[in-house]
Amino acid sequence: MEEIRLINIKEKILADNENLAEEIRKELAEKKVYMLNLMSSPGAGKTSLVVETLRRLKGSFRMAVIEGDIESQVDSEKIAAEGVPAVQLRTGGACHLDAPMIRAALDSLALDKLDLIIIENVGNLVCPAEFDTGAARKVMILSVPEGDDKVLKYPLMFSVSDVLVVNKIDYLPGSDFNLKLLEERVRRLNAGLRIFPVSCKTGEGLEEWCRWLEADIKAYRER
Amino acid sequence: MEEIRLINIKEKILADNENLAEEIRKELAEKKVYMLNLMSSPGAGKTSLVVETLRRLKGSFRMAVIEGDIESQVDSEKIAAEGVPAVQLRTGGACHLDAPMIRAALDSLALDKLDLIIIENVGNLVCPAEFDTGAARKVMILSVPEGDDKVLKYPLMFSVSDVLVVNKIDYLPGSDFNLKLLEERVRRLNAGLRIFPVSCKTGEGLEEWCRWLEADIKAYRER
Repeated sequence: MEEIRLINIKEKILADNENLAEEIRKELAEKKVYMLNLMSSPGAGKTSLVVETLRRLKGSFRMAVIEGDIESQVDSEKIAAEGVPAVQLRTGGACHLDAPMIRAALDSLALDKLDLIIIENVGNLVCPAEFDTGAARKVMILSVPEGDDKVLKYPLMFSVSDVLVVNKIDYLPGSDFNLKLLEERVRRLNAGLRIFPVSCKTGEGLEEWCRWLEADIKAYRER
Repeated sequence: MEEIRLINIKEKILADNENLAEEIRKELAEKKVYMLNLMSSPGAGKTSLVVETLRRLKGSFRMAVIEGDIESQVDSEKIAAEGVPAVQLRTGGACHLDAPMIRAALDSLALDKLDLIIIENVGNLVCPAEFDTGAARKVMILSVPEGDDKVLKYPLMFSVSDVLVVNKIDYLPGSDFNLKLLEERVRRLNAGLRIFPVSCKTGEGLEEWCRWLEADIKAYRER
């Protein structure tokens, strides 16, 4: 019997991605550009949270958005309408953004004229958790209609995130979504995770989220 | 309204892949190593055709197989049991092999001691058709139980292939699979496609296929 050589493609891809992500993170730290990687299922409210955040922080920071969410340009158009530059990454069916894609997007932006870049990742709770983009912070959204059991089904996403935004809390009354149970489940996986319950529809909780983000960006830039 | 920059990730990936595939093809031509990219749906009989081909050509050529079909090593073990070196590419869920993966596999093989490399691609009739691996020939298998209408559903695969092996013809009697209709449909897309009806189970047609392959390898090596 001949010998079988085994090559783990996925491990190699993830290792290469990790290296490039570290380079990106280092470059952005030197240039004092804070990059945030926003992840969630489709329809959890990524674009709404981005738009609400842009509106509140526009006066304080120079911002840009990297959109990887969809084939079309709908989301980018909403961002551009806010007067913020947008890069649309057309992934052609890819289930996540990776460091090489973010590298290409960053190369098309004037980094020395920016303080904050928000990446709107592809709507997916699995693969985006595996691929480091080089962002300073990972933020995930879980929306109330998705259910409080998502922690059990997608543990990696909850483990790697720095912040959990629980969106659509206007759906809480009359729903069986248990915010306290969610918190308990999440804490077991990731004790340091910050949680912000918000409603992009009513505006509830958005001030708290934006105040934290503003402070975090300032701390990052003063390092 | 701000300007939107648009980056087509898929086009860039395909262009980068094409460049590397051309490099591989050139290197293999110089080293007189004939590489064949074998593609089909899952279960159409890729491993069976590879094993039957190895058995018939083992005396004439020094061979190796690159296996990308599955997470496990089952297929590689069948190849190694034939006394032929196998490289197992564990794609970790990827739906196709691409030129960088083949480059990694080739780097683990002693190319100057080989005449023929067969790539068993991931079981899928869509994505493998888009990604050039640098192989000299593209061969696809369609098995009779899949139906004669697959040409209409997966036209790209039939267009890019040099050879169509119609496997499991032992299922033809009593089936509504129309080999003549399939040929007519295929010819409209790809007039030069060679078609070999075979049965890896009964052995029917395998001699014709192997005789053609042997002649094609010799012609390639004498170029």
